[in-house]
Amino acid sequence: MKKFIHTPEGVRDTYGRECARKRVLERQIERLFHTYGYQHIETPSFEFFDVFGKEVGTVSSRNLYKFFDRDGNTLALRPDFTPSIARAASMYFAEESMPIRLCYQGSVFINNSSYQGRLRESTQMGVEFLNENSAEADAEMIAMAVSVMKKANLKEFQVSVGHAGFFNALAEEAGLSQEQRQELKHLLIIKNRFGAQEMVQKLGLKDNLAAVIDRIPELIGEREMLEAAGHLTRNPKALEALERLKRIRELLEAYGCEKYVVFDLGMLSPYEYYTGIIFQAFTYGTGDAVIKGGRYDRLLARYGKDAPAVGFTAEVDALLNALERQRIGIPVENSMTMVLYPARLEKLALAFTAAHRARGMDMACVRFEPGRVLEDYRQYGMRNQFGGIIYFRSEREVYALNLSSGQTERVDMSPYLRQ
Amino acid sequence: MKKFIHTPEGVRDTYGRECARKRVLERQIERLFHTYGYQHIETPSFEFFDVFGKEVGTVSSRNLYKFFDRDGNTLALRPDFTPSIARAASMYFAEESMPIRLCYQGSVFINNSSYQGRLRESTQMGVEFLNENSAEADAEMIAMAVSVMKKANLKEFQVSVGHAGFFNALAEEAGLSQEQRQELKHLLIIKNRFGAQEMVQKLGLKDNLAAVIDRIPELIGEREMLEAAGHLTRNPKALEALERLKRIRELLEAYGCEKYVVFDLGMLSPYEYYTGIIFQAFTYGTGDAVIKGGRYDRLLARYGKDAPAVGFTAEVDALLNALERQRIGIPVENSMTMVLYPARLEKLALAFTAAHRARGMDMACVRFEPGRVLEDYRQYGMRNQFGGIIYFRSEREVYALNLSSGQTERVDMSPYLRQ
Repeated sequence: MKKFIHTPEGVRDTYGRECARKRVLERQIERLFHTYGYQHIETPSFEFFDVFGKEVGTVSSRNLYKFFDRDGNTLALRPDFTPSIARAASMYFAEESMPIRLCYQGSVFINNSSYQGRLRESTQMGVEFLNENSAEADAEMIAMAVSVMKKANLKEFQVSVGHAGFFNALAEEAGLSQEQRQELKHLLIIKNRFGAQEMVQKLGLKDNLAAVIDRIPELIGEREMLEAAGHLTRNPKALEALERLKRIRELLEAYGCEKYVVFDLGMLSPYEYYTGIIFQAFTYGTGDAVIKGGRYDRLLARYGKDAPAVGFTAEVDALLNALERQRIGIPVENSMTMVLYPARLEKLALAFTAAHRARGMDMACVRFEPGRVLEDYRQYGMRNQFGGIIYFRSEREVYALNLSSGQTERVDMSPYLRQ
Repeated sequence: MKKFIHTPEGVRDTYGRECARKRVLERQIERLFHTYGYQHIETPSFEFFDVFGKEVGTVSSRNLYKFFDRDGNTLALRPDFTPSIARAASMYFAEESMPIRLCYQGSVFINNSSYQGRLRESTQMGVEFLNENSAEADAEMIAMAVSVMKKANLKEFQVSVGHAGFFNALAEEAGLSQEQRQELKHLLIIKNRFGAQEMVQKLGLKDNLAAVIDRIPELIGEREMLEAAGHLTRNPKALEALERLKRIRELLEAYGCEKYVVFDLGMLSPYEYYTGIIFQAFTYGTGDAVIKGGRYDRLLARYGKDAPAVGFTAEVDALLNALERQRIGIPVENSMTMVLYPARLEKLALAFTAAHRARGMDMACVRFEPGRVLEDYRQYGMRNQFGGIIYFRSEREVYALNLSSGQTERVDMSPYLRQ
């Protein structure tokens, strides 16, 4: 029996103050999404397994939770919202050619190996901006990512922005096979510069191409870095990627958020998913990025709509962890009032409560049990985040105790007694 | 490829106006839960299979979605929140003896046979009131169920309230075996009165016991019915159940919601889950009950906390269906404004938008594309529930078009141009 009282490994319950904090943060982010014109979409928690097939997602199919429906189809819990939203948008917005802005919130499920210590069910909130392949759309995404971090009251954070096209152009120029490209990318991602140099030497690339690939890990910086990188290559696609980033930088200045953004041409993804910008937001107190996003212009075509797309997802649990560790508060209101009454005053207490509830006040009725004292209820209120107690001693003697200040005031009962 | 664009059978996407309606309804219900003093809890979407074992839930284990984790444990998607919350509360509130009020919202998953045409993933919002076995707690639940229906603007609805103890007491008096009891209950649930009569005759019960069992299906009504039922039996436990219902009725009058409530002693559950009141709320336009609840005083003990509990769940999707069919509106605001600008006015449009966003306005930036006309954007705005369009003709000629009234006003741009 005892074993059933636990949650499976990697998933957890959230309640009390922690749950209240989470909900406040979620509402702040949601509000932000709305101010940028994003509209909600909900997709099922599971899809046909193939929706998350290996060319589509950023999660290995080994890490999906898979099961069968009654008709023998293989289903998988979503590890990520993007493929589902791409599927849904391809169907419902098949004929729409104007900008589509969608936002979502919900659980994602990744069947991690347990030693990683990560959550297997976590909450994501994100946006997808479809039908726009402009630098404006890219900049809007990055500006929103910065706004999410600021909204959460984070002061020290950074959004790193790369571009899949820069590395891809050089890899193409070098004539790398798919495997060689993956291997080189892997070496650059893990920052194994010696390994990357060795590989480049073995490939016998011409000097200037070898030199720019070798320097990728240090191509981190602001506008000057983008200018400097432009002198390292004449590859037109690589230069196009740099021009795009410069244009985005210009737009970020118009948004007033350029100081949070660093360009990093070594920001690469192991997946062939991104076709343009790739970005991540980092802060202290959490190992992984708290926001991850990028452009994936080929994804929707898989579901029948040939449309560009850019988006990001915020990892709500990781954000909460970071806030906790940085001791940054979340404005949770203790708005709940306990209405405490002896059994004989029940009708009066219910009428009093009903009148206050109708005005939108949060009130929990609690009957004063014989054998208890007010202090018992005060402690109960404190451990359950009540803001105050209104206690009925008699019809006319009613007191309001503020649990944070400890102050008590008399409540005027005449409106309720006259009735 | 085409097959991936569909959702699996029994699950669906929600977007646009439908999603907006759903979210408004959810926020209304959530607000209501808060005004009654309920605090949020979130539990994982899946649990160890045994948490939903057959003595616990109201869903057959054949209808669970089951799968394995990496350690070979059998997991199941929750078909219902109550067992998870009972598990969680038994752990986190093990020592709490004061009232615990919890509320939840999320998806539940039932692997129905497809011919039933029901949703396999649906949204539930509900409450659990733990550590209280009083009639007050029962009445609070029923009053809240009425409030949910009223909050949704339903005018014609009914909450039917039964009590598991009435039938159970008579079945015990009749000395029925577990199987006989289940069979008789089944006949009464499906309203097969001839079958029930035949069974009662075969059992050779004494006349007055046979008579009261025979009359159970017609024991539907208000206070008078409860009085009348009290003359049909002298079984102390059955009379106790009736007394409890009378006391609840009295409290519902204090809540002012008794006119929506009908007592129905034939309201039985096929499961041995409920120990006290059982209730359901019905309205037009949906076959099933839209709210289901009751008292289950033995459930928490299974997880190690011997505490009484009462609760209910509202079926959000069924409520939305009922509202749709009854043509009852949900107050969805079209609060989104499109900011439409030609490329050359981009910086001004972004600054204008940023200033309005900072004041909490919802604004989507859309660049006016060559080859399109304003009418294209008006139609786009209409089909995507925008409230209005602010379009930039030049730095000083900026107009606001209200999409519902069709009226246009000039926007004063001087504050943005002076900067």
